[in-house]
Amino acid sequence: MAPLRTALLQGPGGIPGSVAESLGVLDEAAGRAAGQGARLLVTSELFLTGYALGGRTAELAETAGGAAERRVGEIAARHRIGIVYGSPELAGAAVFNTARLVGPDGAPLAAYRKAHLFGAYERGIFTPGAEPVVQADLDGVRIGLLICYDLEFPEAVRAHALAGTELLAVPTALMRPYEFVPRTLVPARAYENGMHIAYVNRCGPEGGYDFTGLSCLAGPDGVVRARAGTGTELLVADADPAVLRTARADTPYLSDRRPELYGSLVRRPEAPEATEESAWRSAP
Amino acid sequence: MAPLRTALLQGPGGIPGSVAESLGVLDEAAGRAAGQGARLLVTSELFLTGYALGGRTAELAETAGGAAERRVGEIAARHRIGIVYGSPELAGAAVFNTARLVGPDGAPLAAYRKAHLFGAYERGIFTPGAEPVVQADLDGVRIGLLICYDLEFPEAVRAHALAGTELLAVPTALMRPYEFVPRTLVPARAYENGMHIAYVNRCGPEGGYDFTGLSCLAGPDGVVRARAGTGTELLVADADPAVLRTARADTPYLSDRRPELYGSLVRRPEAPEATEESAWRSAP
Repeated sequence: MAPLRTALLQGPGGIPGSVAESLGVLDEAAGRAAGQGARLLVTSELFLTGYALGGRTAELAETAGGAAERRVGEIAARHRIGIVYGSPELAGAAVFNTARLVGPDGAPLAAYRKAHLFGAYERGIFTPGAEPVVQADLDGVRIGLLICYDLEFPEAVRAHALAGTELLAVPTALMRPYEFVPRTLVPARAYENGMHIAYVNRCGPEGGYDFTGLSCLAGPDGVVRARAGTGTELLVADADPAVLRTARADTPYLSDRRPELYGSLVRRPEAPEATEESAWRSAP
Repeated sequence: MAPLRTALLQGPGGIPGSVAESLGVLDEAAGRAAGQGARLLVTSELFLTGYALGGRTAELAETAGGAAERRVGEIAARHRIGIVYGSPELAGAAVFNTARLVGPDGAPLAAYRKAHLFGAYERGIFTPGAEPVVQADLDGVRIGLLICYDLEFPEAVRAHALAGTELLAVPTALMRPYEFVPRTLVPARAYENGMHIAYVNRCGPEGGYDFTGLSCLAGPDGVVRARAGTGTELLVADADPAVLRTARADTPYLSDRRPELYGSLVRRPEAPEATEESAWRSAP
């Protein structure tokens, strides 16, 4: 199978609040990415609207199949490139922080609602998603979707690996001082799960935040194929199934797991069990 | 609470197969570590015997409370320092790859049997352990034990975090070309779990292996407090509970987890469930 050439558009969309401007930025970037042979363009969290809009987020939220989603589909089809983008989603009375994958023919392929919301700001605006693994296939590669803080939980990425995700697309709005995440945690996740990860961040100031940039495409061998700086940037690199096969053979973590020992990871904190005392441990 | 000064003895023990020589190396290192104020000395996997002994491993394996364990207790008590060390353990007909923690008074505090065995070599010699979390307290700090390959599984370290481990001691025998593990995966584990990790490797050639060294003490903020090179070395650094408290407040991963979404992590591969199709995914 051929490598999936993947483009990462680091940056905000347009001026926060202007969906039209963000669609213009997306159109231009999709053209450039397709011109470099990319088949998938991944953009940042809440790309269409901005991250720090507070109460205005709900006003800009759109139901599935709305006008902005159709416009993204037109852009994808015009440039023959798949697109992952973030935008607020309205569903009944709830607002979700959603990432959508649109195929190169413009058809909606997948939508994922952020499950791990970050801090009081996000929890004040969004309802957390309840479906941990959302995937779709593009050119024979199984694409998975997570958003920003989700990736910092090893359980969330492991669930994707167990479900067969080969390229995890992660729209992100990571701010200072959390540079450890793109620098170290993203390559670690790719390595320990045998997958490619396209981690695409915003950059620069918005509201009280200062986004770090440092977007990257990390390979299943832990090698970072492309790494952005701290400004707006379009990266293009290959997610190569051959690298994935080699890595999964070299570090067979998925088959060497011992799920019968991991029971504590799924216990609810509402009903904590007593800490088990080790049979080896002496009395305190 | 005061920081726990921790010493990491990178290297093999003595000549492979000579427990007496390894005990001599341990005695000397314990004296030096205690002289620098350390209260805990962590050594490498199978420190007492060597890693690549093949069939001789079983001959050198000892039941709990055996002669070598008593000698380590004497060394610990003489220098007033806790000691973590690796050695093969005989239990009935089984041989385990075990790490023991001895207190500064020489008393045995904990013994952990490696649960994730690495490759055909280890599986041919050892029985895998069945208890995922083994802990003991030293100077008010909760110490946990894992061994080498265990740490590469995020589930194994997460189970320790959920059980309250503050300093994870990891005797290791990591060989080339897996340098990604000490360089990236160990700091990632410390950061994502809010704990200190003392990862202590062998170094140099033994049998057909070439151990990488690169031992480290990684902090819960992702900062590596001490890092060894590729040769024999004694590192001393502090595991500071104040750093741990700050990190757990800055990155509250343990309270932001969503265990109700992690069910796939504990399913046995023997009985795989059908992959759930996302409600959002269009027909292929």
